[in-house]
Amino acid sequence: MTNRICELFNIKYPIIQAGMVWCSGWRLATAVSNAGGLGLIGAGSMHPETLLEHIRKAKLATDKSFGVNVPLMYPEIDRIMEIIVQEKVPIVFTSAGSPKKWTSYLHDHNIKVAHVVSSAEFAGKSEKAGVDAIVAEGFEAGGHNGREETTTLVLIPSVRKATSLPLIAAGGIGSGQAMLASMILGAEGVQIGSLFATTIESSAHSEFKKCVLGLREGDTHLMLKKLAPVRLIHNKFFNQVKEAEANGASVDELKTLLGRGRAKKGIFEGDLDEGELEIGQISALINEIRPAGEVVQSLINEFNESRSSLLNNSNYSF
Amino acid sequence: MTNRICELFNIKYPIIQAGMVWCSGWRLATAVSNAGGLGLIGAGSMHPETLLEHIRKAKLATDKSFGVNVPLMYPEIDRIMEIIVQEKVPIVFTSAGSPKKWTSYLHDHNIKVAHVVSSAEFAGKSEKAGVDAIVAEGFEAGGHNGREETTTLVLIPSVRKATSLPLIAAGGIGSGQAMLASMILGAEGVQIGSLFATTIESSAHSEFKKCVLGLREGDTHLMLKKLAPVRLIHNKFFNQVKEAEANGASVDELKTLLGRGRAKKGIFEGDLDEGELEIGQISALINEIRPAGEVVQSLINEFNESRSSLLNNSNYSF
Repeated sequence: MTNRICELFNIKYPIIQAGMVWCSGWRLATAVSNAGGLGLIGAGSMHPETLLEHIRKAKLATDKSFGVNVPLMYPEIDRIMEIIVQEKVPIVFTSAGSPKKWTSYLHDHNIKVAHVVSSAEFAGKSEKAGVDAIVAEGFEAGGHNGREETTTLVLIPSVRKATSLPLIAAGGIGSGQAMLASMILGAEGVQIGSLFATTIESSAHSEFKKCVLGLREGDTHLMLKKLAPVRLIHNKFFNQVKEAEANGASVDELKTLLGRGRAKKGIFEGDLDEGELEIGQISALINEIRPAGEVVQSLINEFNESRSSLLNNSNYSF
Repeated sequence: MTNRICELFNIKYPIIQAGMVWCSGWRLATAVSNAGGLGLIGAGSMHPETLLEHIRKAKLATDKSFGVNVPLMYPEIDRIMEIIVQEKVPIVFTSAGSPKKWTSYLHDHNIKVAHVVSSAEFAGKSEKAGVDAIVAEGFEAGGHNGREETTTLVLIPSVRKATSLPLIAAGGIGSGQAMLASMILGAEGVQIGSLFATTIESSAHSEFKKCVLGLREGDTHLMLKKLAPVRLIHNKFFNQVKEAEANGASVDELKTLLGRGRAKKGIFEGDLDEGELEIGQISALINEIRPAGEVVQSLINEFNESRSSLLNNSNYSF
């Protein structure tokens, strides 16, 4: 019996690098895939022609599986899907929307589909839509986030009960120990964002990466819940949002405050004051910038050490 | 080598039943202690003389270790501590305040002290204050909660790095699998609230228990963050708070809305509309009312099955 996530995506380790706006282009995705995980190009921050370029570069940089993450609310979604099919990308992770419309289309072109959810209810709906795997992402994750605010520790067993599909845990996972913990809770693999956002191959600005290394617990909070909840690092922009929300700002007022292009400004251009700085809670435990391949290998080493230590540790004998 | 939590508290299993307002009197605490865990009487909802009565009844109902949970902001704290010392209660869990003032006093009377924190920073401060063990409680927990909003999955490894003291994980733990997961992350035991709040021996009102059994993911949220953050079940009172907060209600307005005695009204008297209904996220996975001793035993059975399955499962071999 082999691991279902490894089998489904034809990878060595069930470690998926999350598709992340302004971080995960072809360089990061192929570094992860070459190390035995599954790299995802994040289409969320790309014009269709930019995505096309990244897919073509990825194909030159690896002969391993890689995929594309597609937020389903994306305005040019038709063109994005056309490119993915035309370029024969083997795997698509969909998020932020219903997988009903696109799953069978992707299947018709022999593309595997995983869908990201934040609740057991949507896991069930995704299974009905025919997806091949579920990513269940908890409250502690970076970026956009579910309104239920369910944490990974609670979400994984809950989704495990709701679906028999291969299950990937996301949110708060930054070590092989956390990977093993998620798998004990019912997941068969993990999707990791923050830890890869701060690798050498991430296209995030070096100022953004440095900022993340300095974070401590409690330095991110889920904000803009009246629009679409997003986990943000405390900075000047964050404080403006916090004040506006404390004073009861309306949806329109928040939209005006947010404006456009703030994630790019913060993550890609390194404007730490005005940017929307997205990262997960686990950033509090990230202290160095490493090559992505090394990150994959340490996760597996920690996982294996942690698993063996369970056997020989009388701490665990009751 | 034995488990440090078991050794410290002289218990068979490192399972602590959380001290919970209006749920955990002598009946629940001794049921847990008699089953091999550590039961705590929750002093937070008791007048000093009521606590005295509960301690005396507990002594008659068990010859095992039990403890008292004391929120340090409690108005009659001096009298509470006096009773604890006089009755020779062997273990005190302190929360909601600084452990500086009381730890050495309790130690002088041979009482073991554990302190509840929601961040690595406060774990370090508690260690300096001399406590014997740390409880690290994540965002998913019921009742009052840290402002950092760090989830258990992130908090445990973070606190593990900050202190070498025996460490107890709390928040989101409702199964032996979650117990094992927490221990892989660095904890040596678990504190469990919600699962015991719904046992037969819990003094919560039967309407409250029934309400909890019906909850699904996303049916609790952390509210009243301008006062003291507390996780509440969605009900009429919750909706009033939600609306007030969305409109920018001030601290004073929220205090007026909250009034006094709402937790008692909801949890103990079963008023599901007007009461402040406190429970953790894991309530979404609680489906039956059982005896507390049976809960302890299933946790251990699940823990052991889960641990053995790690050895023989090729899902986990990389």
